[in-house]
Amino acid sequence: MKQQVLKKIDDLYEEMVELRRDFHMYPELSFEEKRTAQIVADYQRKLGLEVRENVGNGYGIVATLKGGKPGKTVAIRADFDALPIVEQNDVPYKSKNEGVMHACGHDAHTAVALGMSKAFVEVKDELEGNIVFIHQNSEEKDPGGAKSMVEDGALEGVDIIFATHMENYLPVDHIYYSHQYILGASDDFEITIKGFGGHAAFPHDCVDVIGIGAQLVSSIQQIMSRKVDPLKSGVVTIGSIHSGEKTNVIPEDLKIEGTVRTFDKDARQEIHDWLQSITKHTCEGFGAESEVVYHWGYPATLNDPEATEQLIQSAKDVLPEENILEMEPNMGAEDFSYFLEKIPGTYFFTGTANEEKGFIYPYHHPKWDIDERSLANGAKVMAAATIDYLKK
Amino acid sequence: MKQQVLKKIDDLYEEMVELRRDFHMYPELSFEEKRTAQIVADYQRKLGLEVRENVGNGYGIVATLKGGKPGKTVAIRADFDALPIVEQNDVPYKSKNEGVMHACGHDAHTAVALGMSKAFVEVKDELEGNIVFIHQNSEEKDPGGAKSMVEDGALEGVDIIFATHMENYLPVDHIYYSHQYILGASDDFEITIKGFGGHAAFPHDCVDVIGIGAQLVSSIQQIMSRKVDPLKSGVVTIGSIHSGEKTNVIPEDLKIEGTVRTFDKDARQEIHDWLQSITKHTCEGFGAESEVVYHWGYPATLNDPEATEQLIQSAKDVLPEENILEMEPNMGAEDFSYFLEKIPGTYFFTGTANEEKGFIYPYHHPKWDIDERSLANGAKVMAAATIDYLKK
Amino acid sequence: MKQQVLKKIDDLYEEMVELRRDFHMYPELSFEEKRTAQIVADYQRKLGLEVRENVGNGYGIVATLKGGKPGKTVAIRADFDALPIVEQNDVPYKSKNEGVMHACGHDAHTAVALGMSKAFVEVKDELEGNIVFIHQNSEEKDPGGAKSMVEDGALEGVDIIFATHMENYLPVDHIYYSHQYILGASDDFEITIKGFGGHAAFPHDCVDVIGIGAQLVSSIQQIMSRKVDPLKSGVVTIGSIHSGEKTNVIPEDLKIEGTVRTFDKDARQEIHDWLQSITKHTCEGFGAESEVVYHWGYPATLNDPEATEQLIQSAKDVLPEENILEMEPNMGAEDFSYFLEKIPGTYFFTGTANEEKGFIYPYHHPKWDIDERSLANGAKVMAAATIDYLKK
Amino acid sequence: MKQQVLKKIDDLYEEMVELRRDFHMYPELSFEEKRTAQIVADYQRKLGLEVRENVGNGYGIVATLKGGKPGKTVAIRADFDALPIVEQNDVPYKSKNEGVMHACGHDAHTAVALGMSKAFVEVKDELEGNIVFIHQNSEEKDPGGAKSMVEDGALEGVDIIFATHMENYLPVDHIYYSHQYILGASDDFEITIKGFGGHAAFPHDCVDVIGIGAQLVSSIQQIMSRKVDPLKSGVVTIGSIHSGEKTNVIPEDLKIEGTVRTFDKDARQEIHDWLQSITKHTCEGFGAESEVVYHWGYPATLNDPEATEQLIQSAKDVLPEENILEMEPNMGAEDFSYFLEKIPGTYFFTGTANEEKGFIYPYHHPKWDIDERSLANGAKVMAAATIDYLKK
Repeated sequence: MKQQVLKKIDDLYEEMVELRRDFHMYPELSFEEKRTAQIVADYQRKLGLEVRENVGNGYGIVATLKGGKPGKTVAIRADFDALPIVEQNDVPYKSKNEGVMHACGHDAHTAVALGMSKAFVEVKDELEGNIVFIHQNSEEKDPGGAKSMVEDGALEGVDIIFATHMENYLPVDHIYYSHQYILGASDDFEITIKGFGGHAAFPHDCVDVIGIGAQLVSSIQQIMSRKVDPLKSGVVTIGSIHSGEKTNVIPEDLKIEGTVRTFDKDARQEIHDWLQSITKHTCEGFGAESEVVYHWGYPATLNDPEATEQLIQSAKDVLPEENILEMEPNMGAEDFSYFLEKIPGTYFFTGTANEEKGFIYPYHHPKWDIDERSLANGAKVMAAATIDYLKK
Repeated sequence: MKQQVLKKIDDLYEEMVELRRDFHMYPELSFEEKRTAQIVADYQRKLGLEVRENVGNGYGIVATLKGGKPGKTVAIRADFDALPIVEQNDVPYKSKNEGVMHACGHDAHTAVALGMSKAFVEVKDELEGNIVFIHQNSEEKDPGGAKSMVEDGALEGVDIIFATHMENYLPVDHIYYSHQYILGASDDFEITIKGFGGHAAFPHDCVDVIGIGAQLVSSIQQIMSRKVDPLKSGVVTIGSIHSGEKTNVIPEDLKIEGTVRTFDKDARQEIHDWLQSITKHTCEGFGAESEVVYHWGYPATLNDPEATEQLIQSAKDVLPEENILEMEPNMGAEDFSYFLEKIPGTYFFTGTANEEKGFIYPYHHPKWDIDERSLANGAKVMAAATIDYLKK
Repeated sequence: MKQQVLKKIDDLYEEMVELRRDFHMYPELSFEEKRTAQIVADYQRKLGLEVRENVGNGYGIVATLKGGKPGKTVAIRADFDALPIVEQNDVPYKSKNEGVMHACGHDAHTAVALGMSKAFVEVKDELEGNIVFIHQNSEEKDPGGAKSMVEDGALEGVDIIFATHMENYLPVDHIYYSHQYILGASDDFEITIKGFGGHAAFPHDCVDVIGIGAQLVSSIQQIMSRKVDPLKSGVVTIGSIHSGEKTNVIPEDLKIEGTVRTFDKDARQEIHDWLQSITKHTCEGFGAESEVVYHWGYPATLNDPEATEQLIQSAKDVLPEENILEMEPNMGAEDFSYFLEKIPGTYFFTGTANEEKGFIYPYHHPKWDIDERSLANGAKVMAAATIDYLKK
Repeated sequence: MKQQVLKKIDDLYEEMVELRRDFHMYPELSFEEKRTAQIVADYQRKLGLEVRENVGNGYGIVATLKGGKPGKTVAIRADFDALPIVEQNDVPYKSKNEGVMHACGHDAHTAVALGMSKAFVEVKDELEGNIVFIHQNSEEKDPGGAKSMVEDGALEGVDIIFATHMENYLPVDHIYYSHQYILGASDDFEITIKGFGGHAAFPHDCVDVIGIGAQLVSSIQQIMSRKVDPLKSGVVTIGSIHSGEKTNVIPEDLKIEGTVRTFDKDARQEIHDWLQSITKHTCEGFGAESEVVYHWGYPATLNDPEATEQLIQSAKDVLPEENILEMEPNMGAEDFSYFLEKIPGTYFFTGTANEEKGFIYPYHHPKWDIDERSLANGAKVMAAATIDYLKK
């Protein structure tokens, strides 16, 4: 059956490309993916799957393909929202929604899932178990769709979950796996220091937030250099600092925004705690007030080692062994982590780069585009893993 | 003669009020004071003075009253430009140029000079010496009018110069003097740190300008705390800091703007030198580039002790002795300093505050207004000083 | 043969204990291990091994046991120097060299190697290959003995090397392994800031090294927080800072000492480079001079994954599988790393803790003592690994 | 009478030199000036003055010369303790108490007072008023003698007080006066940061006092740069910082010592308050504890303007007008300030430098020595001022 499904996916290549390009031309922002969801739901329903719409906080869809024989249930997750970016590619399938662009490959993820679905429908009767396609909304925009889809039962009865992400740092016909953490947790913070403004020549009548802010930024460096276990990776980056408008006026307040990237849960919490403590006390010491708005983002994406090992083995049916590569964890974050907090599974990257064809731009770049051979690769690797898992 | 002139100024009070209110209603920005200059020139010419127009870099006027007898020459300086402020007073003489306002008393300074001129014309024949009225343009906006008026000969033949500034921190019927520095030097700077931007999770691939900027701001504090003679007052204030737009992006550059206030020339130069050195090296140490744009503003206003002493003595003819007060130097700056770099003279503040009437707002405040009794006071103090000086 | 050797080691338990206690009673500092070396050399020679003395920069010994049959060569490394610590244990075998103590288990390492040697001598004729016992001097004191022993040919003809270290953080009858880095690199630095001293009330006539030092220490924090890849662990710790003697004198210079711990070679070099750059420029910015003395210590101890995997398998003949544990790398350093830079091998920790008996103190503690059952465990694990390797 | 007294002082010059050299040869440390006090008391008593010994906390002496006619009372203060310095001069009157030296001119101050006393005794009967000689112990060592002498009644009935200090920054035959602050307040502090020590490789298990200390020292800079009125001079100098002994150990605590110099009382208090606040909060923010021991030293020496003006006028009888110079306040401190907190008076410096003769070393220098012509100058200026004051 495996060869049959893989062959079928190859046959569906043109259709997957067509689907991907259609999504690409009509990208929709997070929480607004009405058209995309409609197409997906219609497609899956037409294939005979049970389709549940509006799962979770948006247009999330859960489409279930019941196998003819009893068995386990595998979920395939594909997200379908786009980004507020003006596309700079000059291609026939260029975005027609000016200012919105599939610059993160979610168009491809969705085409991959639909291709898989169509291929599996053909072998449905022999299938020992079920396949659930989770078409997730709003990955790009906090709070994301994953968490609420999980809460709304998307994983009910599911035993394992697979997902892939298109990746232009990796040549096409390759995949990247990790047995453990593959993506980090990403939390944001916004600090406001409230001082007391006044004339530049009278600092003693003011509380100078810029002087305080400088000491605060320097003190925050010690969180990573002194407060977190050196063996636990993490990043605290301050991405913006803003205060004041004139040379001769001491401003009233200062704003700092930043992000925290971690893998380990304890490190994640400790960074938060020290950031709060250092901010509060640094400001108090100088007579200023402070406020920290801490936004807990997606947790780290922690793959199951066994599920990963199985995916690696299955991938060998699709790609040369030397093209199946281990990657270092990446400090980006995504809300697939919520699925992995509930059940085992693995998340991997499917190579899409092709230097000759100019597919070299990283995600979120206005010139992002991919070698579409990756559509078949991604679908086939997940299909092989699904079949192997259900057979076990 | 002194009593006659002082009496005459009192008689001219209504006219001075009228003049001041007219200027107040039609304020003009620095380098755009066409109407004001025209009125002033016409007024002085009508009184019989020799009038030189367009002196220096703008509408500056030098009007000379030649006394009937030989003697020294006293200059009275009055500036006449207004500010880009929307007036919030509800008075009949409210600014009719929306967005422009005489919020710094230059309308009054000009009325004072014109009133003095008219009073002195009456005693012209007996006057042993000359009086030069320097109506200066553009005090509020760098490079100011003073420097170029001096270069254009405004002080030719002048022996001493007096000027006053209206002051709402001081009650009407008072004046503030200082034997030495009365106003500071004010220099501005703009620092740009050029790093290398990138993703928040990859600080090692970037040069993080915010981390560097924090160390720079802290290091700059040591200029005043460690590098300048503690007996020489000074202020280095950073009025704004700006970098970055997103939590998850390390920005390319950071901008800091600030001001330096000093009295002493050496301290002024040393602060500049250390700011350059500390900025350059702090950035280089971390692999960033930097640029410092240093704008040398007006120098400190250094009164002549003898001229001041004489003004104090003369003022006793006008105000009760206990209302003639010594003030601490103020770190504001003005370009009257350029006149004092050439010849002796003194600059003093004329009290304009009157709490009952609501004249309490500091200069540059949209509700600034003054007790107009100060017009007569200012004119009389300078008139008395002029007469006493010429008599010596 | 394996069972025979393991049995023999058990039989030698009392002798190993005796040997260890003798070394414990007569500890010798690095580069001064004359008595210890003599005993070791005599013992090995008496067993019939070829013994080379004074290998490298001290009392290093290479003792070779030639097997009766041709094959590969396995090295066992045991270090034998002690520490300048006053022992606080009250035991019959307490150090008799007041102020010197085997507080790091090297007495045990040596006993383990001698026990192994005696056990293998018995099966010598059947042995397919050779065993080289490297008795290394001076591990505790830079530059260590390892590097010079390698240079002096200690690894000639050796194919693989094993070593173990006693560990009181781990209960007896357990071992800790790591497939990759098990210990870090440890480099030290000493920074001198040279300013200009003077009276506390005249900072402007001085170059204040304490103010500069503060900025330097804070800037150094950014090396780990901003300059090194967050996925590459590292530590930069400043262990001491000293300057000045009086409250009212600005001192001439300031000294900072610290240590750098890393695994990755690039990170190790980058930290050095940034430390140099930041120090130089921070000091120059404030008009001070600086000197950095950087002492490159032992590199990171990087185990060979295959050798480690083989040791793990062999260890299962000696210890219950659940007692064979993976450990996180430890940022301590040791010069066994020089052997691993030349040939594959693995370094592991042998548990020695026994809470009931009070064996709970970490190395270098004056109350360090061990459960001596670890002598047999360490010897048997390495013996099993040796036999399995030679059989392959 | 004035000319008579001034002449008499000139006649006493040799005796004053002899007295000074005797004190110089037998210097005594603060609170140990037994011999010196005995000589002084005997001398004054022999002259017929009423002598009160052991006034205050040490060997302080109050010697009263009652004039023949009623009038005001003038006090002359002279301190008599020496310093723990090894003299490096090669002179016949070199210190015979090895390690103790009159390197601050108190030997001269005492000789001046005794000379004045002898001169005034001669005109005693005509004197309209009284002169009190306050021979103060222990100026060099906190808590000083002045405060306790005041508390013990030394100023009882005194109307005005004069004192001078020898000064090698000023040529002989000159004096330095100041109408206001002439010396500062000097307070000391000692800060201890208590963290948690441990191994250099485990900063997260420690609280790193060196990292915290660096931020604290930098934050303290902002007290002078941002928190104190720029017009009010002040210095906060950290004179020592000490922590740690090894490169690889994070130490338990860190000590900082420093001094605060101010003139203004408010600034003095504010610096204390911010130092406390910044220290407490900086440490708390990072999880450390802190202790600040603040030692309030001598307050600022604030001359009375009128008394100063009178001294200047009187000095013109002794020195050429151009040798009577105004000085900038000096941030050194001395406990004469306690006398000036009670009654008006003035403190001035008497020039003692003579480059040709090698009298160029500043006080507290082991080669300090003075042009002894200053003995007569100091005595005559204070004598003239005394006479003029009593005559008023």
